[in-house]
Amino acid sequence: MNKAEEFKKYVKKIQYYYQALSLIHWDIETGAPKKCIDSRAQAIGEISTYAFEMSTSEKMENFLNELSLPESMEKLSDNDRALVKVMKRDFEKQKKIPPELIGQLSVASSKAQAAWEKAKNNDDFSVFQPFLQEVVLLTKKMADCIGYETNRYDALLDEYEPGFKSNDVKKVINYLKGELVPFVEKISEKEVDDDYSFLKIKIDRQVQRKLSEKVLRLMNYDLDAGRLDVSMHPFTTSIGANDIRITTFYRENDFSDSFFSTVHECGHALYEQGVSSDLADTPLSSGASMAMHESQSRLWENIVARSHEFWDFFYPETVKIIPELSNIDPERFYRGINTVKRSLIRTQADEVTYNLHIMMRFEIEEALINDKIKVSELEQIWNSKMKEYLGIVPLKASEGILQDVHWSHGSFGYFPSYMLGNVYSVQIYNQMKKDIPSLKDSISHGDLKVILDWLRKKIHVHGKKYEPKELLTMVTGQEPDPSYFMEYIKDKYSYIYKI
Amino acid sequence: MNKAEEFKKYVKKIQYYYQALSLIHWDIETGAPKKCIDSRAQAIGEISTYAFEMSTSEKMENFLNELSLPESMEKLSDNDRALVKVMKRDFEKQKKIPPELIGQLSVASSKAQAAWEKAKNNDDFSVFQPFLQEVVLLTKKMADCIGYETNRYDALLDEYEPGFKSNDVKKVINYLKGELVPFVEKISEKEVDDDYSFLKIKIDRQVQRKLSEKVLRLMNYDLDAGRLDVSMHPFTTSIGANDIRITTFYRENDFSDSFFSTVHECGHALYEQGVSSDLADTPLSSGASMAMHESQSRLWENIVARSHEFWDFFYPETVKIIPELSNIDPERFYRGINTVKRSLIRTQADEVTYNLHIMMRFEIEEALINDKIKVSELEQIWNSKMKEYLGIVPLKASEGILQDVHWSHGSFGYFPSYMLGNVYSVQIYNQMKKDIPSLKDSISHGDLKVILDWLRKKIHVHGKKYEPKELLTMVTGQEPDPSYFMEYIKDKYSYIYKI
Repeated sequence: MNKAEEFKKYVKKIQYYYQALSLIHWDIETGAPKKCIDSRAQAIGEISTYAFEMSTSEKMENFLNELSLPESMEKLSDNDRALVKVMKRDFEKQKKIPPELIGQLSVASSKAQAAWEKAKNNDDFSVFQPFLQEVVLLTKKMADCIGYETNRYDALLDEYEPGFKSNDVKKVINYLKGELVPFVEKISEKEVDDDYSFLKIKIDRQVQRKLSEKVLRLMNYDLDAGRLDVSMHPFTTSIGANDIRITTFYRENDFSDSFFSTVHECGHALYEQGVSSDLADTPLSSGASMAMHESQSRLWENIVARSHEFWDFFYPETVKIIPELSNIDPERFYRGINTVKRSLIRTQADEVTYNLHIMMRFEIEEALINDKIKVSELEQIWNSKMKEYLGIVPLKASEGILQDVHWSHGSFGYFPSYMLGNVYSVQIYNQMKKDIPSLKDSISHGDLKVILDWLRKKIHVHGKKYEPKELLTMVTGQEPDPSYFMEYIKDKYSYIYKI
Repeated sequence: MNKAEEFKKYVKKIQYYYQALSLIHWDIETGAPKKCIDSRAQAIGEISTYAFEMSTSEKMENFLNELSLPESMEKLSDNDRALVKVMKRDFEKQKKIPPELIGQLSVASSKAQAAWEKAKNNDDFSVFQPFLQEVVLLTKKMADCIGYETNRYDALLDEYEPGFKSNDVKKVINYLKGELVPFVEKISEKEVDDDYSFLKIKIDRQVQRKLSEKVLRLMNYDLDAGRLDVSMHPFTTSIGANDIRITTFYRENDFSDSFFSTVHECGHALYEQGVSSDLADTPLSSGASMAMHESQSRLWENIVARSHEFWDFFYPETVKIIPELSNIDPERFYRGINTVKRSLIRTQADEVTYNLHIMMRFEIEEALINDKIKVSELEQIWNSKMKEYLGIVPLKASEGILQDVHWSHGSFGYFPSYMLGNVYSVQIYNQMKKDIPSLKDSISHGDLKVILDWLRKKIHVHGKKYEPKELLTMVTGQEPDPSYFMEYIKDKYSYIYKI
């Protein structure tokens, strides 16, 4: 066996432990007996420590040093070269962080999460504040260990969106803010008949499951290489090669919420089901970045499954499963699932206002990490930003500053992925429309395979081989450009709101 | 940390990998996407190799050598002493077997299992024969490595029933054979009205699941420390502390089969749910032996759940779930679920004829391992033994010599556990009756907690701390004695068949 083969064998070896860990986590979220959690947590601790040790071992370092030499690299296949590059980048970043700091952050974020839950239940930010302060302190230390040029936040952002800088995010925000805030203003001035109570009728969970299964089949999700379960919060997890599972939930009085959750998660799952088998069971078998992943889920959830043409085909199918909808005009249904409303909660936001929620979070966390604001000021800053971006102010901390779990986890740098995902999704779709002139027609006949085939070839197959900017440029000929997103939003919602 | 604590920490560390492996196996049996199997098999290989390496490491050897010294042993707690003893026994046995032989046996049994499936589908023993020959050859080699006094089979039997010799099994068989064969003869001479077609009515799987859930609650199975799923073959698996899962299957035209499978598996699960938490996440958290485990499942399945007093309470409950049974006389139902029939298939045998199936298997495998018969003669010997014990002869290999998977796995020495389990179960129940005079009355009022409490205290709590003979003697004051079993069988079936 040559060095590259040995290296891949070692990489896969490590990956099998992560496979076990993914399964354990999936099991916990989908129905492990509640009393087993203590013992299972010990197992997670043991196995993840061992996997981490192998990932950061001298053996790994030797492999990476040897294989990354120019004379070695040029002999490697394309995929192997990418694997060495990505793993060397991650290894070097990891080496910069002292294990004690990782331990401290892990303990601090466990405590912070418990405090966050308590604070949220009590609508009291002060309960969370000291714990968040600790997490922020340690996160800043970590960023300093990783290093950065001018903006400490860059060190964190890079974890989620490799190759992206804070300034890139700011450019996108400046553009979108200027466009979105007045556009939302216009929409909110429109008086519309908005009785969409048919979206809140009670639908049995079994019936909702059938609808989910139907759309999964339509989207060509491979159920022999995945499965659909129920969990508190919907998620997608890659257990290993040919095993990409999704979960959803069924709210009895909100079937469309469950439906779009299923479509969203399926979008994520299709991405990983489509990665080249040559990259299987290596770190390259995931998506290019968080935002690129989100672009896939958003493309299916919003651009496809909230489109006119999709419901041309799928409305009659839905009525077969939910006969209660038979007397609702499809156009009315379309407007119902595309309602724009300035609301307090990010996860419930529509596709027009969603990015506004993200922008303010980015601005807050970027300022926090750079010591421009203090944790103690967060609640007040949150509320004033809500006013600025969305024109409303939360009355309760649980519907404001305490709504998201991310900061308690120490996941600073994550939020921009949502916004960038939206931006990428439209830019990608725009290219797809150019490449497939009959796209709308195909969708309105229920042929979504054309979309999947195109995404597979252009994006999915590459896994994590390319950085997101690089991949987006390969696919669309351009770096991220939010003007496509704005054009899409204005087009769609000018029609809906007659602006 | 002292040596004993260090040792236990190391033992638990290993156990966490087995926890992951158990979950992976459970997942495969209950619904993992079928395309993931190849990748998952790699993960199983990697993780089990690592766990095996730790179990047989120099570190483990040093722990065991040091702690098993008399001066160390006397300082240990009762439980720790048992842990050292059991692990040292297993370690030493393992050390005797060359790793290459384990590898060869693993490969040979994989191939043999595939051949067995093919042979069974084609009703052709000759397809399986050469593969079985190889497995037998390697199994004999393994027995020789392990060592024995006079009977090579003893080396294998010890794996399933520690402390038991072939001669012990033969004594039980000699007694039971002399009693059972003529008793079954008598039963078969009786002409009875046996229209039990109500047991074969079509019952929806969801309804059957409700019945299973009901009996699990009645048996006090802790669903917060376990769960019920569906698999091709019902099984119980201990994933880890407070996580003992069971599976069943629902045949639409045989609800009682599913029902008793659930009760059987629950019997196994109650055993492991009841092991002292002090033994959690160590190898002592399982049962004393295969037969002791089987005694628990059989006690619940046959002695309790096929009794008059059980159905006094549970028949009206069953009718609530399956109204189709409301016009069936409970006595008739009782006789239906206790029908004795000389049949070809072990897994479908009733509690009277079951042991006859086991005896002939034991006699065949004991002779085979000791070179008294050849694999090529097996089919003919099987058929003549069927004639001798059960008075019938299979027409197809799939209903005869090819019906069980055990030999293809190399699980020689396993079969006696089923018979011994039956023997233990009655002996244990007999003691329980003495200790709890109101037992029958409690059962007929649906109070099964008295049974569980007694079993917990006498058997479950000890886990694998004692060898089966030792434990049985502690509980009943006697070594295994099959006369209790015969007395129970004669009592019950003389009534049913009016003998």
